[in-house]
Amino acid sequence: MLNKCSSLSRLVGELKKLPGVGERTAIRLAFHLLKTPQNLTALSESLLDARNRVRSCSICFAITEDDPCALCTGNRDSGTICVVENSQDLMALERSNAYHGMYHVLEGVISPLSGIGPSDLRIAELLERIGRGGVHEVVIATNFSVEGEATALYLTRLIKPINIRVSRLAHGIPLGSDIEYVDAATVQWALQGRNEL
Amino acid sequence: MLNKCSSLSRLVGELKKLPGVGERTAIRLAFHLLKTPQNLTALSESLLDARNRVRSCSICFAITEDDPCALCTGNRDSGTICVVENSQDLMALERSNAYHGMYHVLEGVISPLSGIGPSDLRIAELLERIGRGGVHEVVIATNFSVEGEATALYLTRLIKPINIRVSRLAHGIPLGSDIEYVDAATVQWALQGRNEL
Repeated sequence: MLNKCSSLSRLVGELKKLPGVGERTAIRLAFHLLKTPQNLTALSESLLDARNRVRSCSICFAITEDDPCALCTGNRDSGTICVVENSQDLMALERSNAYHGMYHVLEGVISPLSGIGPSDLRIAELLERIGRGGVHEVVIATNFSVEGEATALYLTRLIKPINIRVSRLAHGIPLGSDIEYVDAATVQWALQGRNEL
Repeated sequence: MLNKCSSLSRLVGELKKLPGVGERTAIRLAFHLLKTPQNLTALSESLLDARNRVRSCSICFAITEDDPCALCTGNRDSGTICVVENSQDLMALERSNAYHGMYHVLEGVISPLSGIGPSDLRIAELLERIGRGGVHEVVIATNFSVEGEATALYLTRLIKPINIRVSRLAHGIPLGSDIEYVDAATVQWALQGRNEL
């Protein structure tokens, strides 16, 4: 049936390439879209529109429509650079409303197993930004995965010797969590990083 | 961040309209697509292509690219019509390879709560097909939901009086199921429909 309808089977094939979408979900999405042609058209157009307009900021490499991006040109503390793996992490930090400095998107993490070395990331560009002066602190906000930690260590060893403060996001008990159910390593970090009241 | 990138937020908005896709999934999908521009372009094109080429068969109302569809024009038993709610159900029956007759897609079920009556479905067209003669059996394969059962009953009352055999898909224990875990109503049906060995 599906193979007799080549345009539908092609659409299902494309939907299946999305993360977390298997054959059944793809078929369900395809039929849903065909039933709402105006949504289908809007999705198709917004895809091309995003592809054509979204780019990387030439300063911080965050995704943006205008280059340089609103974060780089905005009225923010230019003395602090927060280093993140990707633009999604940047968005999570921005949602917290707790950071008012600049960002630098690495576009990945050091991962020898995937063949990603420091030269594949935006590390040279970060050092160049720091080299231009005016930066007094680099906040490393890579993820707490093996690769994220390795990247944080690598950056610390590069940046600390040039006399710039390097900091890392705090580990601890997440808000709203029951200490009973938090993993041991997190509790250990929370104890080590305890604050005097 | 997202609101500063209007094309991206529009794409996320469109993805969120898909069934089972929330804000977070939509963002993840959008970033995934932006990272693979060739997939993004292919998806956008296949959406429009499917919209432009997929239509309903004018005989059986199954989705098709050619009208009449391959099922209606193919070498199949034209004496049997299997009535299904939608093309997805038709595809499930075709996957079973156990049915070789014609189909008729109702494009819905009778559902007074949603304001869908018999005249909103392809029931008149079904009766017209039967009226043309040559049909000796109608297999009703609507779902075993309240609406599906009501539709089956409605169709039975319409078709039986014109001396055509009306049958319904069998209820029973699904293949590979543990009887222990099958719901009571299904076990009841399986007992009532037991076959002599």
